[in-house]
Amino acid sequence: MSGGHRTIGIDLGGTKVLAVLVEDGQIIAREKRATPRTGTPENVLDTLVTAVQRIDPDGSVERIGIGVPGPVVPGTGVLPAAPNLPNWDHDVPVAQLMSERLDGRNVVVGNDVNLGTLAEHRLGAGRGVDDLLGVFVGTGVGAGLVLDGRLRQGHRGLAGEIGHTFVAFADFVHGGGSGRGELEDYAGRAALERRVLTANPDRAETLLGFRRGGRLKSKGWVDALEREDPLARDLVDQAASALAASIASAVALLDLELVVLGGGFAGRLGEPFRRQVEGEVHKRAFAGASAAVVHAQLGDVAGALGAALMVDEP
Amino acid sequence: MSGGHRTIGIDLGGTKVLAVLVEDGQIIAREKRATPRTGTPENVLDTLVTAVQRIDPDGSVERIGIGVPGPVVPGTGVLPAAPNLPNWDHDVPVAQLMSERLDGRNVVVGNDVNLGTLAEHRLGAGRGVDDLLGVFVGTGVGAGLVLDGRLRQGHRGLAGEIGHTFVAFADFVHGGGSGRGELEDYAGRAALERRVLTANPDRAETLLGFRRGGRLKSKGWVDALEREDPLARDLVDQAASALAASIASAVALLDLELVVLGGGFAGRLGEPFRRQVEGEVHKRAFAGASAAVVHAQLGDVAGALGAALMVDEP
Repeated sequence: MSGGHRTIGIDLGGTKVLAVLVEDGQIIAREKRATPRTGTPENVLDTLVTAVQRIDPDGSVERIGIGVPGPVVPGTGVLPAAPNLPNWDHDVPVAQLMSERLDGRNVVVGNDVNLGTLAEHRLGAGRGVDDLLGVFVGTGVGAGLVLDGRLRQGHRGLAGEIGHTFVAFADFVHGGGSGRGELEDYAGRAALERRVLTANPDRAETLLGFRRGGRLKSKGWVDALEREDPLARDLVDQAASALAASIASAVALLDLELVVLGGGFAGRLGEPFRRQVEGEVHKRAFAGASAAVVHAQLGDVAGALGAALMVDEP
Repeated sequence: MSGGHRTIGIDLGGTKVLAVLVEDGQIIAREKRATPRTGTPENVLDTLVTAVQRIDPDGSVERIGIGVPGPVVPGTGVLPAAPNLPNWDHDVPVAQLMSERLDGRNVVVGNDVNLGTLAEHRLGAGRGVDDLLGVFVGTGVGAGLVLDGRLRQGHRGLAGEIGHTFVAFADFVHGGGSGRGELEDYAGRAALERRVLTANPDRAETLLGFRRGGRLKSKGWVDALEREDPLARDLVDQAASALAASIASAVALLDLELVVLGGGFAGRLGEPFRRQVEGEVHKRAFAGASAAVVHAQLGDVAGALGAALMVDEP
């Protein structure tokens, strides 16, 4: 006999697959597997199926949600070309293929960042709030929106693309990134690393020294800030300012109550970074109508949890 | 006997009050009156009552919507301090006071720009579209949002404040306006006039010569553009670019299908300005997912029509 209402949620990421079995909002089992780095979408789907079988060996859970690293047109379950997945260079009908492999069980597919926001709204930092923005700062910057208590996906599944909102227009744009003045030109680990590589080598010396395996990871930024490295300070200040501008724009446009700040890079920079972003959001607020900026609470598991919650959404 | 479903909509503007009697989506009577420039909020309410009595002499219309030039917390009917209305320096419970003056009839109050967007969605350029942004460029820049077919007002009634979204952050900001890099520092008749007044007087000569009564009106800009005045060209280009950046940000964040461009200034600049804005919105679109930018269709009557429609909203 089933001990309550159970769903499975899977977060399909570029490096790992995380599956959770959720009963009444609690994770009662989890399974982590490496995402195939080579091969085809078929190999990735095999990994997802294995994760489901491990977490629910008798196949008793009827509904499965999957969060994927790309936009999904609501209702289709199709993930288009995804640069982080092996040879995923065409539309793959994930929901349909997974359902076929799982004895016709119900499979729903959504965007991972949107689903992470949904999880924070239902079970994390956004509980009890009707209107919120979840902003996740990692390699890039993604976001999700809950409006009037419901996840907004958009008719093309593209809602929440805050990394592609503009914080500098026309003649204000300068070096780095796409050069179009998008938030992702100034914030996110990839943008910051690009800016270090194009900076004056003398100024960049400390940060370049913190690279590990040729990559400047979040910890390198924290270490450089601790040593009061001027370039690290400038670039992180600029990232916080750009983030705050995009967030304040979203607050002004949508009259949001709360911003949940998550993602690996923001998490690593921690409370000082959150305070910096929130301070500038408040300063930029129209008519004093600001939104609090709080840390995400669910960490790495948000995407999988959100996928498990999605299958119950109307 | 009543000939169908009738509501009254009133647009309370800084210079005029426009009331319409609407039956089944058609305006069957209208009444225009000057907004009192002096006196108190009571005098303004008197004008609204007179407009209702003129348009519906026998008092048979049970429900009345009013659009007001400021944010209204949904459900309250209260208009806070409004700089465009005489001595309107405190919260005025417009819905309650008007209902008392109108024999207890039902009065609903909303923001004028939001209601203009609602009207364009139901009866104008946005018919049949689920997700749209209405942008109105006049003295300032305001907007309204329809998401999933419903007007978004926001819990503080502040949704749609696109004029206070940011198109330049931190070190990119330069002269003019609030100096915070808001859209309204670069777009809207007031911002453009400010920029003319702070420009090099030699460059500003043509535009300054087009002032009438000390004010640079929309027609002055059109005339200056026709003469290929370089400052007019630069400032209008910058306004279009800033508008496009804010619009493209909204499209990326919300996955919008359509943008309806209205307001006196945008209307006067006409098709070339619309094309300019749309072109840059398309150029800035993420993943090719853009939104068409179309002219508003309802002109001056949009706010009053939207107010008449609002009373039927769930």
